[in-house]
Amino acid sequence: MTNNYLDYDTLQFILHEVFDMNGLVDLDYYKDHDAESMNMFLEAIRDLSEKELYPYFAEMDEKPAVFEDGKIIIHPQIAVINQKLSDAGIIAGPVPEEDGGLQMPHMAYTAATYIIDCANNHVSGYTGLTLGAAELIMEYGSDILKGIYVDKMLSGEWAGTMCLTEPQAGSSLSDITTSATPDADGSYKIKGQKIFISGGDHEYSDNFIHLTLARIEGAPAGTKGISLFVVPKKRIKEDQSLENNDVITAGDFQKMGQRGYCTTHLIFGEQDNCKGWLVGAPHKGLNYMFLMMNAARIAVGRGAAAIAMASSRAALLYAQDRKQGRPIASSGKKNVHQEPVSIMEHADVRRMLLSQKVIAEGALAIVMQTSKYYDLKRASESDADKEKYGMLLEIMTPMVKTYPAELGQQVCSDGIQILGGYGFCSEYILQQYARDIRIHSLYEGTTGIQSLDLLARKVTMQDGAALKLLMKEMMSSIGGAKEYEDLVPYATKLESKLGSVQKVLSHLLPHAMKGDFQRFTADANLFMEMMSHITIAWLWLKISISAAEGINKGDSSKLAFYESKIECMKFFYKYELSKTTSLEETIMDSDELTLKENSKVLF
Amino acid sequence: MTNNYLDYDTLQFILHEVFDMNGLVDLDYYKDHDAESMNMFLEAIRDLSEKELYPYFAEMDEKPAVFEDGKIIIHPQIAVINQKLSDAGIIAGPVPEEDGGLQMPHMAYTAATYIIDCANNHVSGYTGLTLGAAELIMEYGSDILKGIYVDKMLSGEWAGTMCLTEPQAGSSLSDITTSATPDADGSYKIKGQKIFISGGDHEYSDNFIHLTLARIEGAPAGTKGISLFVVPKKRIKEDQSLENNDVITAGDFQKMGQRGYCTTHLIFGEQDNCKGWLVGAPHKGLNYMFLMMNAARIAVGRGAAAIAMASSRAALLYAQDRKQGRPIASSGKKNVHQEPVSIMEHADVRRMLLSQKVIAEGALAIVMQTSKYYDLKRASESDADKEKYGMLLEIMTPMVKTYPAELGQQVCSDGIQILGGYGFCSEYILQQYARDIRIHSLYEGTTGIQSLDLLARKVTMQDGAALKLLMKEMMSSIGGAKEYEDLVPYATKLESKLGSVQKVLSHLLPHAMKGDFQRFTADANLFMEMMSHITIAWLWLKISISAAEGINKGDSSKLAFYESKIECMKFFYKYELSKTTSLEETIMDSDELTLKENSKVLF
Repeated sequence: MTNNYLDYDTLQFILHEVFDMNGLVDLDYYKDHDAESMNMFLEAIRDLSEKELYPYFAEMDEKPAVFEDGKIIIHPQIAVINQKLSDAGIIAGPVPEEDGGLQMPHMAYTAATYIIDCANNHVSGYTGLTLGAAELIMEYGSDILKGIYVDKMLSGEWAGTMCLTEPQAGSSLSDITTSATPDADGSYKIKGQKIFISGGDHEYSDNFIHLTLARIEGAPAGTKGISLFVVPKKRIKEDQSLENNDVITAGDFQKMGQRGYCTTHLIFGEQDNCKGWLVGAPHKGLNYMFLMMNAARIAVGRGAAAIAMASSRAALLYAQDRKQGRPIASSGKKNVHQEPVSIMEHADVRRMLLSQKVIAEGALAIVMQTSKYYDLKRASESDADKEKYGMLLEIMTPMVKTYPAELGQQVCSDGIQILGGYGFCSEYILQQYARDIRIHSLYEGTTGIQSLDLLARKVTMQDGAALKLLMKEMMSSIGGAKEYEDLVPYATKLESKLGSVQKVLSHLLPHAMKGDFQRFTADANLFMEMMSHITIAWLWLKISISAAEGINKGDSSKLAFYESKIECMKFFYKYELSKTTSLEETIMDSDELTLKENSKVLF
Repeated sequence: MTNNYLDYDTLQFILHEVFDMNGLVDLDYYKDHDAESMNMFLEAIRDLSEKELYPYFAEMDEKPAVFEDGKIIIHPQIAVINQKLSDAGIIAGPVPEEDGGLQMPHMAYTAATYIIDCANNHVSGYTGLTLGAAELIMEYGSDILKGIYVDKMLSGEWAGTMCLTEPQAGSSLSDITTSATPDADGSYKIKGQKIFISGGDHEYSDNFIHLTLARIEGAPAGTKGISLFVVPKKRIKEDQSLENNDVITAGDFQKMGQRGYCTTHLIFGEQDNCKGWLVGAPHKGLNYMFLMMNAARIAVGRGAAAIAMASSRAALLYAQDRKQGRPIASSGKKNVHQEPVSIMEHADVRRMLLSQKVIAEGALAIVMQTSKYYDLKRASESDADKEKYGMLLEIMTPMVKTYPAELGQQVCSDGIQILGGYGFCSEYILQQYARDIRIHSLYEGTTGIQSLDLLARKVTMQDGAALKLLMKEMMSSIGGAKEYEDLVPYATKLESKLGSVQKVLSHLLPHAMKGDFQRFTADANLFMEMMSHITIAWLWLKISISAAEGINKGDSSKLAFYESKIECMKFFYKYELSKTTSLEETIMDSDELTLKENSKVLF
């Protein structure tokens, strides 16, 4: 079995040696799992990905989901994949046992979906959204709603979606206009349009359960007047048969990437005959959505991290194989009689391969670190721990969503560059990765939205408590790294970067205190970039500590592997962490050039 | 007339106020031109672009060039475009009068093709390569070859191509194997395969004249054994009729972008019946190619600069129109009863729009500055001036090729980001710009090759003479800027950055002196990045001086325009030039992590 799209050894190392996934089963909540069962689950998913997912990956791009004769046509293999993934437990996996799930650690679920995304990033969303929609019902829905929907969704028989965006309301959800009018039978009449609905309709599911944001008549303006509804494509009649619920599919957005994953335009209630059922209390819809958002944002980061990994593996294979050029000898000339070398011997190609590697693995690390916080928040046995890991989860979430999405684009672009002209050609997969990954910095909240979330909400929450906790985590790793002579300079460097974070915050926070939020958040994106590079640098230090511990254990068969990780950390510090110096310089610059009221720019 | 893809006022300002294009006609070589004739030429091209090019731009992407039944099928509008552009003088424009051309300043030609590329970047290559091929024949070919080919090429009747790359020889041209065997009639039998041949075949030209690199039997190994041949698709019989010359089209590469521009695979001499005619002396082929390379590389930079401009204009239009969200008030809340604002009022969107603008205009400036050096090298009346501008042209060439191509990708990615989810959708043009521009850092020498050229060849040429000349140009602008109080801090900043260049070179050059060229060039890409940001910062200073002069002239109708340019310069210094601080830090880091012999990385 060849896994050209995944470095499985590194995944194992990160899961077990760096983040001790198996240790989670010591928590009571996860006690029904063990190292062997989780490993078997991952192996099964890996096998499935190799046989059923990867072989169809390029084809799903060539034959994208389309809208024809009122129907969305998706690649038929997706039916097979959804069934097999559901059977393997990919929907029920992270669901509590009391709701009929497997109550598996989120880390294991995330590792499994990471493998899936490495093999074929167009498909995990179908089951992923079904899980997300089911979780909303389980968490906030009435027992009646749970009884009707949950089992059928966990088994994959019915699909689920999230319906938030409307043509006039993208990032600004406060402007949604889809309406909900109370009906005598306790349901609501739903009327409105939703766009960008991933997995919103196709012929391989008997029903689609749309978790839909809408405004109940007379609700307050803004986000405080938004409620959450279950709106099935087909509603259940008394005799348990299904009838149409006036949910019409109006189109499928054609996209530059991730083309196997349909992106639909839905119209609710065109015939005034679309029923929805309220989830939880009225006007709390956005709160409910946001409470589920951490997992969704980890999932986006995970998808981007996986694409970056797959691109780096494809580029590496090519670079090992492709012979081209010769080194310049000390004479300043090349020896043209020498055989050409493989291109990975050229320093610049090597730099790109290394950059791909450290970003892809760093992205994987932040996904796993955040998933672990998610698990610890969910399963910790003391309230103090739940609170602590909850805050760490909150501050990591915008970064785990953004870093893999943004830096992953650089990885995929380098993947093209390594192949030269072939990288631009459709016959090589690298260009597809570059197109696919472009969505990750847009959906589930753009990078701009995540950056506002990080700086204006998470950094400042509870007087900076989340940030302090994160800094403490980092300081603990810095202390650990200082035990190893080779790591000391890097630990020291990271420590000085924590000082830089304090410095830029001291520069920015006074604007917030004065109530000038425009100025406070104007460079939020740069703060995000700086803070994520530093966070990944911390995770590389953690990786290096685990590698150094591995070396100390003296297993010579793994020595080269461990040394390689430390070398990668050094590369990250030289080529990536160094970018924060400029970011700090820019953030500290007091010129207010992006505020409209000050600007003299003529567009 | 709406030019949504081009800021024509800025083009005019850069051509005339910053670079004084019209001043070129004072040189004897360009005396047949004047301000009015050049302006009429640009207006004609602008009109043509609006009517015949832009309307077909998206369609050429949707219906790409393909290979069917042994033929390359391109969009039929390309026939119309090639004819109209040829008639307008786009091929004959820059050609010397003695060869039947118009002997127009290269700046004017470049401005015209820039307008074309803004409107539709898929088409300028067809006529551009015909010009390039004709120039090779005119410059180095015999009178017989000139007599046969030049007129028909300048009129656009016959097309021209450049055939360099082979499947096993991309960046490493020394490995080409296409062979040339002398024949009794003075011609050569050509045998071999060429790939990535832009505009290599289609049904809208009577003949294709392939300027082909091949190796004469017994030639020395490496680049010193490569000769240049004219290899027509159809050769001319005694009676002047055409017969097939055994040049077979084997395919068309399908690509992620620039899909209207065919990229062919050609086979020469499969029937042992392909004749080629030597251009100039044997074994000098690569030298001839390289002597034409400056213009070709300016052309790539121009194309990328144009795509960046077009992307920035499309994103701006959207951002002006799209209403979404509200500013946060000093209470820390948004007023949900307020109407949503246009997204360009949000600081982060504004930052992206400004970033697009300063990079796109900076890219245009480097294209025009380099074109002006090209003109001054060609037309200067003293040998000393020819030498001086020749050296400036040499050192600018790798940067003019690379900066627009690399930073243009960021511009096009921001273009997508500004549109949010719509940016990813095919119905908006932004995603096409992002796909199209990806080729520019690959063809005509990848960024890696350009970076080696800059650091290892151009910076060191004649003991650093070219670099010294460039620094002198920059110091002269710094002096000029210091006349204006508002510009002093930026002039001072640029001056300090020139010190940084000296510092990193003092760090790198000793490796070259020791003969360690691997180490010397290992971070050549980072040096390229640093040096180009600094060069663009210089050009923004030049732009600001022109703007300050404009303000001093007191034309109140242009005041806002000029002030805007100075504001953009400030933005460039804060957000773009600052990146060089980190680049300097990385280059100065002595860790040799990308050299294969030192590396402990396990791939």
